[in-house]
Amino acid sequence: MPIRVLQVGLGPIGNAIVRQCASRRRLKIVGAVDIDAAKVGRDLADVAEIDHKLNVKVAPEIVPAIRKARPDIVVLCTSSSLEKVVPQIQAILSCRVPTVSTTEELAYPFYANRRLANRINRMATRAKVAVLGTGVNPGFTMDALPITLSGACERVDKVLVERVQDASARRLPFQQKIGAGLTEEQFQTRVDTGSVRHVGLTESVAMIAAAMGWKLDKITDVIKPKVAARPVKSPFLAVKKGQVAGIIQDGVGYRRGEPMITLHMEAYLGAPESYDAITITGVPNLYSKIAGGVPGDIATAAVTVNSIPKVIAAPPGLHTMRSLPIPSWFGD
Amino acid sequence: MPIRVLQVGLGPIGNAIVRQCASRRRLKIVGAVDIDAAKVGRDLADVAEIDHKLNVKVAPEIVPAIRKARPDIVVLCTSSSLEKVVPQIQAILSCRVPTVSTTEELAYPFYANRRLANRINRMATRAKVAVLGTGVNPGFTMDALPITLSGACERVDKVLVERVQDASARRLPFQQKIGAGLTEEQFQTRVDTGSVRHVGLTESVAMIAAAMGWKLDKITDVIKPKVAARPVKSPFLAVKKGQVAGIIQDGVGYRRGEPMITLHMEAYLGAPESYDAITITGVPNLYSKIAGGVPGDIATAAVTVNSIPKVIAAPPGLHTMRSLPIPSWFGD
Repeated sequence: MPIRVLQVGLGPIGNAIVRQCASRRRLKIVGAVDIDAAKVGRDLADVAEIDHKLNVKVAPEIVPAIRKARPDIVVLCTSSSLEKVVPQIQAILSCRVPTVSTTEELAYPFYANRRLANRINRMATRAKVAVLGTGVNPGFTMDALPITLSGACERVDKVLVERVQDASARRLPFQQKIGAGLTEEQFQTRVDTGSVRHVGLTESVAMIAAAMGWKLDKITDVIKPKVAARPVKSPFLAVKKGQVAGIIQDGVGYRRGEPMITLHMEAYLGAPESYDAITITGVPNLYSKIAGGVPGDIATAAVTVNSIPKVIAAPPGLHTMRSLPIPSWFGD
Repeated sequence: MPIRVLQVGLGPIGNAIVRQCASRRRLKIVGAVDIDAAKVGRDLADVAEIDHKLNVKVAPEIVPAIRKARPDIVVLCTSSSLEKVVPQIQAILSCRVPTVSTTEELAYPFYANRRLANRINRMATRAKVAVLGTGVNPGFTMDALPITLSGACERVDKVLVERVQDASARRLPFQQKIGAGLTEEQFQTRVDTGSVRHVGLTESVAMIAAAMGWKLDKITDVIKPKVAARPVKSPFLAVKKGQVAGIIQDGVGYRRGEPMITLHMEAYLGAPESYDAITITGVPNLYSKIAGGVPGDIATAAVTVNSIPKVIAAPPGLHTMRSLPIPSWFGD
């Protein structure tokens, strides 16, 4: 019997998850929810651009959709903000269904959103099901993977993770999210209003610190523009010299005034090389590099879908990638 | 309160584990056992070459040592062979103490030693404690790490892991284990009698296959000599041109006649570069490389010591690195 999955949120990531679920024999998409009036009532296969029938219509509300579809798990992809998704998680848990969400602030909420984390943990425990926040970043490349690598160390002094991405081939909303094509002034305005930023560095720093047993004084999260030194373009955008090509963002965790954990992200049009690198300073020193990098959209959907059987099998409560068995793909 | 650790087996790895435990505040070495008459009765700090007092004398027998020291966990490093360690595990479990062992064949015994695996699982379940086999390889670089990486994939078609080590700087027993300095004929004789080989490739292949959900037709484990094309030497050995500089060993898992999982090891004097590399062919393709490689002895001890709190917290039964939370170092 395949695992019955209900998808809430049909943006680019939600649709990618629907496509991945639809292509796996161990999973079956049994329902879908979105608030967008342009999607409600439509065939899910059509919305998610799948060329075979799913026999699922997009519904507008979570609880009636769960009652009708009787899923084994809900996948929630509606917002980066934990505060915004709490009512949705509450609705899902009122039906006692396990939940995996790509909400970035849920990946490790015990630092920046401790009160909400405790609340979700209580709700999940009462509902006797597990809840997980995950994705490629936060959830994998900048936290679970460096934590895993530290397992081979006798001593860890510092952790540095670098994620550099050439954004030229990414979708337009991603290029806009990193501020490509803006002036430096426009970029700063968008940073100030929160529309240009990657969400999750604080969560990843906090997850690593918890694994290492380091009590941090503070976590900083600083955004700077990557200014184009020469004209660059993507299929969607042309960036002139002096305009912003993308974002440089650093999350740093300090202990006793010392930077112990540094997460360095660069995502801009024309980056000469995409890669994910982990440097552990300690005994031994370890340097691991994924040439080409882990591609964002595919991998966020994959990490989420791959976690489905683990979340169903997990003890009740709020989990993170730290408390579940090691990540793994699964076939038929 | 620190975790109380009793070490069984004081060879190079056992002693490295004692040193790592002695250097961590969250752990306390409370007992040690070895059958070697030259070690029994001696001060453990002396045997393990630690320059501060441990107040532990090496004992000759497991059960009396456990009764005296009352450890929270036993670390077992006596043999690569599961059959040989079963009576020792039985003795430890008769005292209801969780166990982590560097026995290579215990890292994933459900394929090559299924009957013994089931027996240990039953014993551990009855004793209400967890048992784990781990180390750097098997246990980490060629199984847990590639499995973890697959978690970012939408589809996995093949897995290739390469572990290449320049053995020049390793200890003499390791250089002898890989056949350095032998003629090709002598090498083949030692391969035939089982004294030249790495134990664990079959276990790692089987662990990866189980994670992927692949039912394998067969697993092969083939050993070849690396013949020196020019003279090479280490602090211990000189290898002439035409003599054996080390070992090349391949573990391959086949499904429907196709090689799905290939674990390729090279360990020889004069290897130009040490590294650990993982290639996942699928969607996306992923290539991860640890330049310099994960050093064998330090990391085997580290992976084992780092797993101690996880084994104590795990549900009763026989575990593998697949069933525990992600590996991680821990500090004070």
